[in-house]
Amino acid sequence: MKKKIKKINAAILIIGNEILSGRTQDKNIAFISNWLNSKCGITVNEVRIIPDIEKTIVENILILSKKFNYVFTTGGIGPTHDDITAQSIAKAFKVKYEYHKEAYEILEKYYSKEKFNNGRKKMAKMPRGAKLIYNPSSAAPGFIIKNVISLPGVPSILNSMIENCKKFLIKGLKVRSQTINLYTVESNISKQLGLIQKKFRKFVDIGSYPFFRLGKIGVAIVIRSTSLLKIKSVNKEILKLIKLKKIEVLKI
Amino acid sequence: MKKKIKKINAAILIIGNEILSGRTQDKNIAFISNWLNSKCGITVNEVRIIPDIEKTIVENILILSKKFNYVFTTGGIGPTHDDITAQSIAKAFKVKYEYHKEAYEILEKYYSKEKFNNGRKKMAKMPRGAKLIYNPSSAAPGFIIKNVISLPGVPSILNSMIENCKKFLIKGLKVRSQTINLYTVESNISKQLGLIQKKFRKFVDIGSYPFFRLGKIGVAIVIRSTSLLKIKSVNKEILKLIKLKKIEVLKI
Repeated sequence: MKKKIKKINAAILIIGNEILSGRTQDKNIAFISNWLNSKCGITVNEVRIIPDIEKTIVENILILSKKFNYVFTTGGIGPTHDDITAQSIAKAFKVKYEYHKEAYEILEKYYSKEKFNNGRKKMAKMPRGAKLIYNPSSAAPGFIIKNVISLPGVPSILNSMIENCKKFLIKGLKVRSQTINLYTVESNISKQLGLIQKKFRKFVDIGSYPFFRLGKIGVAIVIRSTSLLKIKSVNKEILKLIKLKKIEVLKI
Repeated sequence: MKKKIKKINAAILIIGNEILSGRTQDKNIAFISNWLNSKCGITVNEVRIIPDIEKTIVENILILSKKFNYVFTTGGIGPTHDDITAQSIAKAFKVKYEYHKEAYEILEKYYSKEKFNNGRKKMAKMPRGAKLIYNPSSAAPGFIIKNVISLPGVPSILNSMIENCKKFLIKGLKVRSQTINLYTVESNISKQLGLIQKKFRKFVDIGSYPFFRLGKIGVAIVIRSTSLLKIKSVNKEILKLIKLKKIEVLKI
C-alpha cells in the first residue's frame, strides 16, 4: 500500500528583544524555512517575532501549536535571566519545568563537574516529557515537546542542530520552484501573468518580484508547486508570453 | 503646559510568500524597527510574516491594528496579481477599494499617459480614505488608513519613503541603549546579571547575547531603557561585577 503524503505546515516563533528592536538581523527564518521545505517537504505558513515576555510566549505557543503541524522556536534557551523559553513552554502545556536527566548528564560531562555552575545547569531544565535535540557545537540541547521544537538563537549553533530535528518530523510534499528572470517591468506582464495564475490557481503559486541588476530593472517570476509537471506547464505558458512580448531573459 | 509623552508601540506585518519560503532574506524588519525607535520613539512589539492570502491578511490587519498603536505592512502593493495588500486592507476596514485621485495623477504623470497601463493603474487603487505616503524613488505611493501604514517590499524603495511616514505618527519615548562587550561566557555572569535585572526590572531591560570574535567567545550585554539615568545606574553595577570577576572588556 502506498502511503499518502499530505501537506505538512509549520510556524516559526522567533523569541528575542534583540531581533524585535532591530539590533540583530535575523538569519534563522530563511534558513529554517529553506531546510524544512527542501529536506522535509514542510511549508512555513507563518512567522512571528515576539519579546522575551512569559505571558506573550505562552499565548503564542498555544495559538501556533493548535494552528500548525509544527512550531519551531528560536532563542531564549541559554543560561541568563532573559532566557525564558523553556519555562514558558512548560507553562503553556501545563507541565513541570525541571531538570532533564540526559541533558544534565550531557552538560555536566561537557563542562566538567567543577565548572558546571547554576547558569549552565539552567540549560538542562526543560518541560517534563521533552525529548532532546542534540547540539554538536556547544552541547546544550534543544528539545521537542508535543509539536513544538525549541532551538537556540545563535545561527551557527542552530544550523549545526537542524538535521537532528528530522527524526521527529512527519515528512510532507516538497514544494519545488522555478525562477525565470526577465529584463522587463512588472506592469508589462502583470495582466497575462494574472491570467496564467488564475488558470493554474489550484496547483501553482506564481510570484513576481522586481530586481535591479547591472543597472537594469528586471522581474523574477517564481513558479512554486508540489507538482513538477504543473511547473513545466506554467513555464511553457510564460515562455510563450515572453516570446510574444519580445522580452529579454536573463541567464544566471 | 508640558505635553506628557507616552509609550507608543507598533507591529510590523510582512506580507509575501518570498520571505516565508526563505527565498528572500528580509531586510525591512530591522530597518523599520531601528527607524521607529530612533526617530519617533516608537517600539516594535510584534512582527508577523504571512503569505499573500486575502483572508490571512484581513485577519492579521484586524488583530494587530486593535492590539498596537500602529501597524506597518510591507509588500504586496505592486502591479501584479499577487499584490493584494491594498484590497485586503480595504476589506478588513469595510471601505471601498478604488482609485485614489492624487495617486492616479502622480502615476499618470510619472509614466506618461501612453504608458500608464492597467498594471500601473492598479498601484493607484487604495482603500477609500487613505492618505498617501510619497515615494521619491519610483512614484507609486504607500498609504495610511486608520493606524495602518502600507509600504512596498523592495528595501531600497521602502527606505527612501520612511521619512514621509513621520508626519502621521504620534511620537513616543525613545528607548536608549548601551552595549558592553565582554570576553566571558554567559554562565559566568548570569546569576549576578539576573539580580541586577530584578533590581531594575521596572525601568530597564538587560539583554545578554553571546558572540564569537577573533576566535574568542564573548557576551554582549545590552541595557535598554527610556531613562538615560537608569542606564547609567545599571552600567555602574555591571562595571562593578566585571571588576570583581576580572573580566576583560572588549573596546569596539
